Amino acid sequence: MKIAILLYDRFTALDAVGPYEVLSRMPGAEVVFAAERRGPVRGDVGSLALTADAALDEITAADLLLVPGGPGSRAQHERPEVLEWLRAVDAGTTWTTSVCSGSVLLAAAGLLTGRRATTHWALPPALAAYGAEPVEERVVFDGKYATAAGVSSGIDLGLHLAGLIHGPETAQGIQLLIEYDPQPPFDAGSTRTAPPSVVTAVRSRLGAL
Amino acid sequence: MKIAILLYDRFTALDAVGPYEVLSRMPGAEVVFAAERRGPVRGDVGSLALTADAALDEITAADLLLVPGGPGSRAQHERPEVLEWLRAVDAGTTWTTSVCSGSVLLAAAGLLTGRRATTHWALPPALAAYGAEPVEERVVFDGKYATAAGVSSGIDLGLHLAGLIHGPETAQGIQLLIEYDPQPPFDAGSTRTAPPSVVTAVRSRLGAL
Repeated sequence: MKIAILLYDRFTALDAVGPYEVLSRMPGAEVVFAAERRGPVRGDVGSLALTADAALDEITAADLLLVPGGPGSRAQHERPEVLEWLRAVDAGTTWTTSVCSGSVLLAAAGLLTGRRATTHWALPPALAAYGAEPVEERVVFDGKYATAAGVSSGIDLGLHLAGLIHGPETAQGIQLLIEYDPQPPFDAGSTRTAPPSVVTAVRSRLGAL
Repeated sequence: MKIAILLYDRFTALDAVGPYEVLSRMPGAEVVFAAERRGPVRGDVGSLALTADAALDEITAADLLLVPGGPGSRAQHERPEVLEWLRAVDAGTTWTTSVCSGSVLLAAAGLLTGRRATTHWALPPALAAYGAEPVEERVVFDGKYATAAGVSSGIDLGLHLAGLIHGPETAQGIQLLIEYDPQPPFDAGSTRTAPPSVVTAVRSRLGAL
């Protein structure tokens, strides 16, 4: 199974690496990180760079396409070469997937029109603006389109996909290998559970961006 | 706050990127990935490379040191230049931290002798062999030494540290931003909860390595 993960300047690292850690461990998985040009691609914080081993025009097909999110995803909405690449690869995929604002980019490419999809908790309006139907769940499947909520949700997406592709025993084996038995010290990962003052502060910080 | 993250061939990507995603978002955090040489460093699966922006000899001090794990960590036990670098940087840290087999590397450098520490669920004997006291918990603090269990536990470690360094509101804000509200589709992240057949299969796969 060929898996292509899109990279672009100012992507969010965990959006790509969370699902990578699961999907790349599936039997027979071959992952390639692809960007406009080969070479290092800087994430949103600036101190991390992941290597793109392929340029977009070197990847014409994939069984699974993963589009991470990040502050840099917005700029990709204006890049015809990126949107066309997404449409061309999607035409041959078994699964087209995203994390965080990656679903808004898929929607901007016209791939989620009329489809149920999720995204970061702050972004349902952006998804709706491109004709998708935002659903506030952590992982949403609509046909071959599998979208995940913010950043860390890509790990859950990866396990859902591994279970569908190779069955629960394989997915559980990967979960055990990466010891994904989450025990966050706070219960603040969702706007339902975070203290209201924290939600307000993060919302205004995101608004300022 | 200066944060140094060690990279070496065949590290596990999420070990480094999980805590990075949290720690790099702390106010004033400056992260540098460091390896024997500057440039791309390949992870254990082979299809991912993270850039080291500094060589080890360029980093003489850090407030927080993070050592990720991975199949390549074992080879570092035999590298005096890596062990000496760990000891030299540790001498000035406020926090010395690890994920997965990173704690075994810290122990190999003599930094966890007589200290309580955790590691991947398959590795407590390796930790004990270097004189540490293995504790089967997800995140273990002993003085300034903070160790996390397997791979994905580094996200929990990062939130613990962010809470201690900047207080719960900051840590909760980061948790909300990265939407860390885990909802794994299986409950197989620990040997206590995974089906026995899955534990046996993964254990024998790890034994074969």
